[in-house]
Amino acid sequence: MDDQTYMQLALKLAEQTLGQTSPNPVVGAVVVNKGQIVGMGAHLKRGEAHAEVIALNMAGEKAKDATLYVTLEPCSHYGKTPPCTNKIIDSGVRRVVIATLDPNENVYGKGVKCLKQAGIDVTVGILEKEAWDLNRFFFHYIQTKKPYVTLKAAMSLDGKTATKTGDSQWITSEQARRDVHQLRKQHDAILVGVGTVLKDNPSLTARYPDTGHHPIRIILDTHLLTPIDHHVITDRQAETWIFVGKNVTNREKARFNRFSQVKIIRLPTEKLELKDVLSYLGKKEMTSVFVEGGSEVHGSFLKTGLFNQVIIYIAPKLIGGRHAYTGFAGEGFSAMEDVADLQITDIEKIGSDIKIIAERKGVDHVVYRDR
Amino acid sequence: MDDQTYMQLALKLAEQTLGQTSPNPVVGAVVVNKGQIVGMGAHLKRGEAHAEVIALNMAGEKAKDATLYVTLEPCSHYGKTPPCTNKIIDSGVRRVVIATLDPNENVYGKGVKCLKQAGIDVTVGILEKEAWDLNRFFFHYIQTKKPYVTLKAAMSLDGKTATKTGDSQWITSEQARRDVHQLRKQHDAILVGVGTVLKDNPSLTARYPDTGHHPIRIILDTHLLTPIDHHVITDRQAETWIFVGKNVTNREKARFNRFSQVKIIRLPTEKLELKDVLSYLGKKEMTSVFVEGGSEVHGSFLKTGLFNQVIIYIAPKLIGGRHAYTGFAGEGFSAMEDVADLQITDIEKIGSDIKIIAERKGVDHVVYRDR
Repeated sequence: MDDQTYMQLALKLAEQTLGQTSPNPVVGAVVVNKGQIVGMGAHLKRGEAHAEVIALNMAGEKAKDATLYVTLEPCSHYGKTPPCTNKIIDSGVRRVVIATLDPNENVYGKGVKCLKQAGIDVTVGILEKEAWDLNRFFFHYIQTKKPYVTLKAAMSLDGKTATKTGDSQWITSEQARRDVHQLRKQHDAILVGVGTVLKDNPSLTARYPDTGHHPIRIILDTHLLTPIDHHVITDRQAETWIFVGKNVTNREKARFNRFSQVKIIRLPTEKLELKDVLSYLGKKEMTSVFVEGGSEVHGSFLKTGLFNQVIIYIAPKLIGGRHAYTGFAGEGFSAMEDVADLQITDIEKIGSDIKIIAERKGVDHVVYRDR
Repeated sequence: MDDQTYMQLALKLAEQTLGQTSPNPVVGAVVVNKGQIVGMGAHLKRGEAHAEVIALNMAGEKAKDATLYVTLEPCSHYGKTPPCTNKIIDSGVRRVVIATLDPNENVYGKGVKCLKQAGIDVTVGILEKEAWDLNRFFFHYIQTKKPYVTLKAAMSLDGKTATKTGDSQWITSEQARRDVHQLRKQHDAILVGVGTVLKDNPSLTARYPDTGHHPIRIILDTHLLTPIDHHVITDRQAETWIFVGKNVTNREKARFNRFSQVKIIRLPTEKLELKDVLSYLGKKEMTSVFVEGGSEVHGSFLKTGLFNQVIIYIAPKLIGGRHAYTGFAGEGFSAMEDVADLQITDIEKIGSDIKIIAERKGVDHVVYRDR
């Protein structure tokens, strides 16, 4: 067993906690002594113990002269928990292997330096790309103070999201629709336009499996048209934040006062600006937003460039029709040279459908990847 | 080495000749004697020797007591060449392994019977599906007397084939565009609507690599609007067949007389009916048609159900826009329960793009697959 194998295990541990550690990153750790795994851990939740601490506690005396594998640079500062580097130094480990540095400016490089000063052998960069990908939301958030934005759409093989009459149930298979619930669970917030609420009266919860933990529901609703009897208002399954324009009156807002989990956020412009919405969410420590449309909302994210990733489910159906619905509407681009250029990072068959993940080119990773 | 391995080799030989044997199928053959390959062959061109004959000629005396692997049931009738079964029986082979029976009613089962009556051991069904797929055009044509129809489109990740201004150069990468030329080469004919000719003045030839052999170009042009100075008329690279409606006059037709490779086919209806076009092509022994749009043509094929396969290239771009172009226009379907339901048979990454092949469900194969 080599460094990569142990780091792979640490990454696996981290992966299990995706969606529950925000705004913290997911982190996994493994302690190995003379070829035996003597400790394992993952950070479970904000405010609770870090992965290294759990793994070292499990190892106990066996941590002495062992190697610690950790997916993210250990912290060297007092945050909600004491610095992990102290714990590591005290444990007696001889070597620490780190997948990726922590871009958080309180940590970046300082954790490594601190360990080295204590005479510990430190290796950085084992499965770095994998570790980076796993924490893409966190890394983006730490660098920009804005949530990582994923746009999701489900369409037919000929690129339609509904027939000309608006029928869209169902384009994709049940497996694909369950996969969407998994994705919802991994994000801090789900965002839709009010048109989607009016048309479908959706719950916007993560139900497969239903862990009772749901992302915050965000509705872009310039004129506060969300019906007060719709699921997102009445079901109390999750918080609902409704962004409205400046012309919405206090009286209109007050109608929602009796729903304690509903928050109306009035922005200072007539028309909602996505950058203001994302800034607000960033300030509220939302590290990731899952945008589920409708097509005009997707069109706005596309035109402003305020997105990081696109996930498209394609069903093997042909809907046809020059007046059928499209997933990304709005004005769109005029010239091919101006369109958004992405790169495909994953293609997967899900049931009878295809799931494609594409990322914006060279937006996020450059700073730390090229160091 | 087992039957599958030798049959795989025979299939590989057959595959190399895709696009050059029409209206005959592609066929490969391998002769094996005591574990040694002593003969190989593929049918190269209509009217020339069949694969079995080439392989047995190569084997010569060594065919005695050998096993012959052939991807398609050998013929037992006099066609453009003498029956292969005679040659096989005379060669002294002890065993014949066949991937799939020949659905041609002159052959189906008769080739096998003929060999068995001569005391040869016959096995049928080794890699049958692969052999069937390889000759899908031929098998469809033999059963229906109509060409196998492939609809092709290239679109962005959000299902657009051009921006709102009509800009579409280029959505997909050069690799994907070269792949299209390979596909053109494998079909007997390329079909487009006159709108595509007017807009792009395309050559519609198979240029990568340019073997000098091009499919016939078919243009659906109800009112004979194809400009007489456009490539498809003047370049003499391939035949061009223009289907026109009954209102086109002899005088209008006569303008094209001086182009010997251009044929104007007047159908007896005002508006072109796809079924009439396909019947005509079937009578002319066109086993396959590659439909490259535009979107109204695709919409017509979709609405009439007169297609067998769809090939979609998806580029990792987002064009956006409620008025951008879609690959399948026309009226389209209204209800999700009516849309065309396909199954994905292949997903491939080509350069930065994705190529998806989907087939209509259960249209063709049932008769022979379930026997």
